[in-house]
Parts: sequence; C-alpha cells; structure tokens
Amino acid sequence: MKSMLLNQQYLFTPGPTPIPERVKLAMNQPMIGHRGQAFSQLLEDVSTRLAPIFGSKNPVLLIAGSGTSALETAVANVIEDNDHVVVIVTGAFGERFANICEAFGANVHRLNIEWGKTCAPEILEDYIKKIDVDVKAVFATYCETSTGVLNPIRQLGEITKRLTDALFIVDGVSCIGAVPVDMEEWEIDILVSGSQKALMLPPGLAFIAINEHAKKVIKTCKTKRFYFDLNRYQSSFDKDKSTPFTPAVSLIYGAQEVCQMIEEEGFSQVIERQQLLKKMVREGIKALDLPMFVSDEDASPTVTAVKPMNGTAGQIKKLLQDNYSITVAGGQKKLKGEIFRIGHMGYCTPFDILKILSGLEMSLYDLDGRKVFGNATTIAEEAWRNHVQNTSN
Amino acid sequence: MKSMLLNQQYLFTPGPTPIPERVKLAMNQPMIGHRGQAFSQLLEDVSTRLAPIFGSKNPVLLIAGSGTSALETAVANVIEDNDHVVVIVTGAFGERFANICEAFGANVHRLNIEWGKTCAPEILEDYIKKIDVDVKAVFATYCETSTGVLNPIRQLGEITKRLTDALFIVDGVSCIGAVPVDMEEWEIDILVSGSQKALMLPPGLAFIAINEHAKKVIKTCKTKRFYFDLNRYQSSFDKDKSTPFTPAVSLIYGAQEVCQMIEEEGFSQVIERQQLLKKMVREGIKALDLPMFVSDEDASPTVTAVKPMNGTAGQIKKLLQDNYSITVAGGQKKLKGEIFRIGHMGYCTPFDILKILSGLEMSLYDLDGRKVFGNATTIAEEAWRNHVQNTSN
Repeated sequence: MKSMLLNQQYLFTPGPTPIPERVKLAMNQPMIGHRGQAFSQLLEDVSTRLAPIFGSKNPVLLIAGSGTSALETAVANVIEDNDHVVVIVTGAFGERFANICEAFGANVHRLNIEWGKTCAPEILEDYIKKIDVDVKAVFATYCETSTGVLNPIRQLGEITKRLTDALFIVDGVSCIGAVPVDMEEWEIDILVSGSQKALMLPPGLAFIAINEHAKKVIKTCKTKRFYFDLNRYQSSFDKDKSTPFTPAVSLIYGAQEVCQMIEEEGFSQVIERQQLLKKMVREGIKALDLPMFVSDEDASPTVTAVKPMNGTAGQIKKLLQDNYSITVAGGQKKLKGEIFRIGHMGYCTPFDILKILSGLEMSLYDLDGRKVFGNATTIAEEAWRNHVQNTSN
Repeated sequence: MKSMLLNQQYLFTPGPTPIPERVKLAMNQPMIGHRGQAFSQLLEDVSTRLAPIFGSKNPVLLIAGSGTSALETAVANVIEDNDHVVVIVTGAFGERFANICEAFGANVHRLNIEWGKTCAPEILEDYIKKIDVDVKAVFATYCETSTGVLNPIRQLGEITKRLTDALFIVDGVSCIGAVPVDMEEWEIDILVSGSQKALMLPPGLAFIAINEHAKKVIKTCKTKRFYFDLNRYQSSFDKDKSTPFTPAVSLIYGAQEVCQMIEEEGFSQVIERQQLLKKMVREGIKALDLPMFVSDEDASPTVTAVKPMNGTAGQIKKLLQDNYSITVAGGQKKLKGEIFRIGHMGYCTPFDILKILSGLEMSLYDLDGRKVFGNATTIAEEAWRNHVQNTSN
C-alpha cells in the first residue's frame, strides 16, 4: 500500500521514544575527556538539574547502561543473600524486578496483581501483614510499561513505612519526567529510571536517585558488585563531580539539553501536557469503540494499552505499521497478541496524538471496512481545545 | 594567551576519542523500537561486521555500558567464589581486572610487571609454573592504556594454553579496531572492548566476543548476575537477533557506520595507518629530546606515554591545554604527574599527529624558552612521506 508518507516512520512505542532535534545536536558536541573540568561541570549540572524531576534532594547519579541496569543497581546495592523482599508485580517489569532480586539471592515475596490493574494500597497492607517476616525492601513499579498502569506510589510508600523498616524502592523507568514525584514526602528511598522514555534520549543512560537512608544501607551492603557499586559513583561525584568509570558522554550532553527543554516548558506544564495526551488518546480510542485495557483511574499518562475484541490487536498493530508507518508495541508475555500499546511520553505533542488516532481510524477501515474516519480525532481535538480554553481562563 | 584557534578544542586523550561527522549523523537516524525487524537487522549487521575486527568466528555481543562493564562481564560470567585466577598487571587497567576478580570472590594471583613494560612471555611461563594451582582463567590487557604498552597477547595465549586448562581472557578496550587480533590462532576465549577508543564512538557500548569453549563455561557459571549475564545476550541473539534488555540504539547505529568506514579504508590499511601514527609521534617526540616512557618494541600504536625530565609532565599538559586547546591525558595512580599520554587511535590521521607535535614544540618554548620549532613536525612529515613512497612502490 502506498502510504504517501515519504517513507517517514512514526514511533509510538513506550520506549525508545523520539529524540528532539536539539537533543541530537547537543549529543553531537565535540567529544571531551571525562577526567577534565569541562566534564565535571557537565555532570554536576545534569545531576543537579535532574534532581527536581526525580523529586530528589540529592543530585541524581548516572550510570552507562539501560533501564534494566538501573533496576539491577537498585537491587545489588541493598539486597543480600536470603533477605526477604516484597515485590509488587503488576506486569512484566515488576516481574523483572522480582527476577533480579532472585538472581541476587533474595527471598522474594511476589505480590501478584492482575495485569491491567494497579496495586491498591490496602492489598499491600494486607499482604505485608500476612507474610509477617522482616522485610528488607519493598519494590514497586511506578508506571508498569507492559500494561500501562500507574501505581499509587505515594500510598504504597506510606504503607511500607508504616508497617515495616524496609527500604521503598521504585522503578520509574517509563514515567519519570512525565509525572509528579517527591522522594521525601512519598518516602521513596531509591528511585531509578532510564533515558529512552519520558526523558527524550536514546537508550543507554541509567539514573539512580538515593536518599540518605539508602546511602547508609548501600555503604554496608556486602553483595558482590563493581560496575554497579553506588558507593563508587557517590564518592566520585562527591569528590570531584566525576564518575568512577567512563561515562556515556554524548548521552549526558543530551540529558543537559533535555533538562533545558523541561525547564523552558516548565516541569508542571510537562506533567499537565502528559495528562492532556492521556485524555486525548483515551477519549479518542473510546470513540472508536475499542476497549481500553486499563481504567481511566489506573492508567498512566505515558502509555495506553488497548485490547481490541476478537484478538485483532496483532492485526491492527501490523496495519498501522504496514500502511501508515506507525510503530506501536504489542503485548508482552501473557498479553502477547491480546493488546497493543501506544507510547505517548517525552517528545510528544497533541498533534502527535491526532496522528496516531488518525492512523487507527484508517487501520480499522483497512481491517474490516468500518467507517470511523474522524471519530477519534474530532473528540481528541475538542478535548485539546477545551483544555487550552480552561487553562487560559 | 590568545590561541587564534576559534575556541576549537583538540582531543588527544586515549579515550574518549573524536567522533567522525558521518558517525554522528548515523547516530542521529530516527529512533526505532528495539523489538522490531529493523533493529534485528541492524544488530545482526553490526555484530557480524565487528567479528573480523575482533578476530572472532562468532558475532560480537553488544551490551549497553562502558569499558569497565565489558571487563566485569568477562569476569562475572566465568569466575566463581575462590577460583584461582592469574591477572597480568602491567598498569591501572590490569589492576582494574584484578580488582573486579576480587570483587567477585576469586583468589587473584597478580603477576605484577613494572609499569611501562610489557609482560614478557617467559615471565608468565615462570609465574604459572611457580604458583602451581589450578587456574580458572588468565587475564591480560592487550593495550595497557595507563602506560601505552601493547602486550604480546599471542605469546601469552600460547603459554596459557600450553601450561593450563585456563580460559584466556583479554581486555582489548584501548586497541581493538587498531591492531591485529585472531581469537582462534591466538587462543583467546573472551575478548572485550569498548566503543570510545579505536572504534570512534562515544562511550556507552561494550563489546564481548566469546568462543565456543567460553560459551560452555559461561553456561554453567553460577555467579550471581542478571544484566551482564551473557547467556541471556547469546540466546536473544541466536533466537531473533535481539538483546535481552533495551540496547543502546543510537550507539549501535554509529557502530554500523564505523564498520562501514573501516571496511572502506580496509582493516589492514587501518592497522598500517596506526603503525605510521605511532612512528610519527615517537620519532617526533624523540626529536624534541623528550624521553619516551615505553620502548619502541613495547609501545602500542594507539597511545604514547612521554616522561619529561624534572617532572614537567603536568606543566606541559597544562600548557597544551591552556595555550593550544589540546587535551592530552596525565598519568594515572603511581604515574600521576610523571607522564603525559597522547591518544592517537580511531579517527586520527597523520595531519592530527603534526598538530599535536606542533603544539608540543610551542609548549616547550612556553615552558622554558627552548626553541625546537619544526624539529618534531619535520621528522614526522618525512616519516609520513617516506611511508607513502615505500608502500606505493
């Protein structure tokens, strides 16, 4: 099918996400040595400017590695053999956290939640009371990329701290930079994220924010580690704003530009834009009579999972790709073939939402001839216009 | 001092190294999802084309991380608690290999060589005979970045295999892509490298080449690991040319262009160019009466260490930076203040060598008024011209 699209490709996966032109240009700055003053200034600037985005009082530590390396860092620096940990599993990435904990010898208590739902606070409360062991850490996923839910981290943190002495450790990979977070108020001890989601960068940079309590635990943790040893990163940063090992210089240049972009737009404005994108994509899809996989209340503002009837998720995903050069993600693990997922975080505007909705309208016609042209885009455009009107009043 | 240099900066550190414009452009290609066909084709292409550069029969595995993550991967996948290992320590990076082995619980036998010298084969032979234990692996550094020596890997491999059943594991970080290597003939089981040296990329991509023998050991190794577990990378690659965790897509795009550049020049031509650069830089520096830290025979074609008299290394380094915007590296650990190091690998031509030599000539005048203008550049230019003449005959 001739798509008339100049062979352009449109990326709507929940990571990697599109990279802004100015971030690309920033990454292309001349390479610098990582043991000089210029790099130290760069690192300090980025680590400090990322802190408010992570709701952290401390500068954010940077490791060359992908999102999973951030998760492993959060585990390997605090968990020792036979420690009891609770992992809230709301999807594939909660499962990954649990697998990493097991790989590092923990006794993992999986609090399994039906995929597509968040972990309600009272469920965690009951679970912690029930297992009745000394828990070293509770692991939670802020946005579960595989299902598109946004867990109530603040309440989960409150329960963790009320009932246990455990560390509260949060995977923020697919939402940090797009959602509010406050490590102190929400009682998060370790918050990790990756570069290729709401932070508008290529994959390859891992972010770790830790509070003072976590620092103490990390200092005494005996688990074997070297590259991911946060003591090394913290002391290099404290000493001379450097990294213990060669840093991902070009990505850190890019991160500096991302901080600049977020500050220019205003972080609260970014968060609000993400809420609008969520509203537009969900209202639009509902107008197409496609069932949402997640309720409005549970849904993340960064990724939206759709569960079309009759198992047509795979076909729709393929039509979007083949006919309109739009890439969305399929379902993972037990959701394979059941859902497709639209990423709408980071470098994403309301116009981009109209693009994916328009592609969906046309793909549904291609699928079975149903004429829904304009149904989703009309309602999404109205939602956008109303939002602008309401906020400018 | 007004350097008349348009505020341009000239990077001559032994990593990171300058990035070719066309590699930057390649890295700026639109982001793609890492679970699609396009990425699989990219990964297969890059892994396969890197194989001859690593002298590997198998496609090279790629991990998002820096050079040290490659070293850790080589350790964590084969070494178990209390294993005896021999680490040939010719400088700071041999020391790092030893430290990683210790962090993972090995009994480390350090074969300490005077810094600035290579490990002569007979020294390894005597050492292995002397320690008289069952050695799980022998670790060697091909180019020791901290001193600029190039160890005789082929002979060290031969001795390792003749005297032991150990794996022979080689750190090729600061030379692979600039020097010959043949994993089969040289009996190397694991060869690792990083992106930011001779491979002309920003830091953040780790390369691991393994042979069939190593694969078997890796399969049964019980050491706790997750992100660096090579079984996961190998099986994802074998299954569908993917990675188990989000790959560093932009750097892999860049690696594809680097393979293209190396193939266009011809890998044997690259190796020859590196030899010429070594000759030019060394003859030039000798013409300035600056003492070399390493003998011609022991020296690497990728990095050259200079040990000026009267401890002026730090001053010369500073003058190069302040007056001519040239960044070289200082000495590490026990060589701090004793030497400076010039990186000349990857995206480096004979003209670049004339640049650093010219900067040196002027810095020596700035240092103490000695007039050596043209001494180094003249002889280096002659060496270049003679080389061209000889090879075109």
